[in-house]
Amino acid sequence: MSARTSGQVRVVGTGLLGTSIGLGLSSIDVDVVLDDVSPSTLALAVDYGAGRRAAEGDRPAIVVVAVPPDVVADVVAAELALHPEALVTDVASVKAGPLAALAAVGAPTERYVGSHPMAGRERGGPIAARADLFLGRPWVIAPHAGSTPEQSALLESLALDLGAVPVRLPADRHDDAVAVVSHVPQLVSSLLAARLVDAPDHATDLAGQGLRDTTRIAGSDPALWVQILSANAARVLPVLSDLRDDLDAVLAALGDPAAPGAQRTLADTLAAGNDGVARIPGKHGIDLRTTTLVVLVDDRPGQIARLLTEIGELGVNLEDLRLEHSPGAPIGIVELAVLPEVAGGLEADLQRRGWRVA
Amino acid sequence: MSARTSGQVRVVGTGLLGTSIGLGLSSIDVDVVLDDVSPSTLALAVDYGAGRRAAEGDRPAIVVVAVPPDVVADVVAAELALHPEALVTDVASVKAGPLAALAAVGAPTERYVGSHPMAGRERGGPIAARADLFLGRPWVIAPHAGSTPEQSALLESLALDLGAVPVRLPADRHDDAVAVVSHVPQLVSSLLAARLVDAPDHATDLAGQGLRDTTRIAGSDPALWVQILSANAARVLPVLSDLRDDLDAVLAALGDPAAPGAQRTLADTLAAGNDGVARIPGKHGIDLRTTTLVVLVDDRPGQIARLLTEIGELGVNLEDLRLEHSPGAPIGIVELAVLPEVAGGLEADLQRRGWRVA
Repeated sequence: MSARTSGQVRVVGTGLLGTSIGLGLSSIDVDVVLDDVSPSTLALAVDYGAGRRAAEGDRPAIVVVAVPPDVVADVVAAELALHPEALVTDVASVKAGPLAALAAVGAPTERYVGSHPMAGRERGGPIAARADLFLGRPWVIAPHAGSTPEQSALLESLALDLGAVPVRLPADRHDDAVAVVSHVPQLVSSLLAARLVDAPDHATDLAGQGLRDTTRIAGSDPALWVQILSANAARVLPVLSDLRDDLDAVLAALGDPAAPGAQRTLADTLAAGNDGVARIPGKHGIDLRTTTLVVLVDDRPGQIARLLTEIGELGVNLEDLRLEHSPGAPIGIVELAVLPEVAGGLEADLQRRGWRVA
Repeated sequence: MSARTSGQVRVVGTGLLGTSIGLGLSSIDVDVVLDDVSPSTLALAVDYGAGRRAAEGDRPAIVVVAVPPDVVADVVAAELALHPEALVTDVASVKAGPLAALAAVGAPTERYVGSHPMAGRERGGPIAARADLFLGRPWVIAPHAGSTPEQSALLESLALDLGAVPVRLPADRHDDAVAVVSHVPQLVSSLLAARLVDAPDHATDLAGQGLRDTTRIAGSDPALWVQILSANAARVLPVLSDLRDDLDAVLAALGDPAAPGAQRTLADTLAAGNDGVARIPGKHGIDLRTTTLVVLVDDRPGQIARLLTEIGELGVNLEDLRLEHSPGAPIGIVELAVLPEVAGGLEADLQRRGWRVA
């Protein structure tokens, strides 16, 4: 694949997003230079192959600022000053604030266009980075009155180079959107997971996939999220207030489930959930590229090594692998992600060798 | 695999759970007879191979009642009367209610022991059934003052035959537990997904994995869940009320994020979510009972098999394993979860053998 992006890309901040951008662009031979205030974080990102260290004489065409939300505006302003010919963007989760802050300090916002790749993980840092983090994900580009369509097009090319789906949205509309699809879900997941803090072990031992899914993002970094939520508080508040109103109705219904209307309140709440989840468009992302095979293995040492050795003998390359091991269970579940064209053959081969493929 | 369960098993209700039980037991040659009030549902389950139709002369050793919550007690009472030598169980999500209802009508509860497999899917019916639905999942068995350890042992054998992990819990403790790990998550997911009903398309178009995960179970059947929530309302209410109190604090903080204490309220909420999610056993990446080692491997076939083979040679048992493989990156990352007491030795041994442990 040859890159749409031409010229040098400078990535400032080599955490999860910055390093993932570097990995993706480097893999298609874009000249990526990296910088980070933490020498050890920068060294890891360079080691991983995300790019080379920034040096004297770098002349970036695009600067991507991937730093924590509370310093985005300052770092963008500094980069605009340092690289007077570059287009500067950022990847922060809230877009109206940085633009306003830049304008307030008189920064040359005509060379700034904010963006926001809708990708992330509960864990941060370069060690969690992946070149395919953005694959199939929306990547919002937020043009403004002072920016040009050509600048947005440059950032769209960069997003396309990373496999993302570019979406142009003004900052205000972006911030309204992420309040409902990202910020409120984060808070609700955290509030839900907090119920487990004082739950007895015999309760948490019964955790199933529903609990795991609903609370997964509750593992996210509090420091990062306090910044995001504070920056978008005015837009998060009305959505969360509506949820509280519905919650109050549910609490009343649960207080007397036999009362007139109580069953209907519960049914309406659950039906609204059905309607809401139906509005989420078809699944994006990496699952579309691979087929998953589920193999059951005995919970004995060496079984997984043997399985992977045999897969290697069969000449199949794994795209991803996951082990589900439920404490106390006599068997483990290995999920193998492989390219669709080899899945059928691998399944048959493994079964012939005596593996249980579910 | 030969079955632990001996004798005939009668499954009443061939929806998702009943048909899955039939499929699993039939696959290990247990004699399964099926019954359902709906002839078409029954025919589908028989067609899928979940068992044979109930007939005159059936003499079940165990009857599994897998019908909607609101008719469980009635059907269990009928089965106790129809099959005076059988042990009768049910698989409903709430356990104290059916037992009390049976006692109230003078049913012979000494032959009834409730159970609850912690497994399900958003979709119901025999067409969604899977023989491996219970694999590695907890299966609660709820003994009571009138039941015997031998009866619980019979149901444990049945659960083990289906690959589940049997857990004995009295009905009251079970119902407290599922309020927090299942019923509140369902309501919260529904309340969250309901925010999407009136969201603009440009918002839902930005949906990411976090939103998908947190709202997945909001796709569940409202009719079923109204019954479950009504049956356990008294236990769901206090958990949900606590959540509402925390939510009110968050709303106040969002209303004025610069006010003294507001940032702390948000941080505490997010940190409590971290603590809660860490209590879920076996969860990838944040299992407190294991130590994670990160090993960097070249992206060449056979490297991971070689790593796991060497770990086996070192006599170390893996508790969990995860492969991070980024298609564009020159190296893969293998996360090994091991017991804390062996982590230090394993790290040193692997490094001595030339592996890069991050």
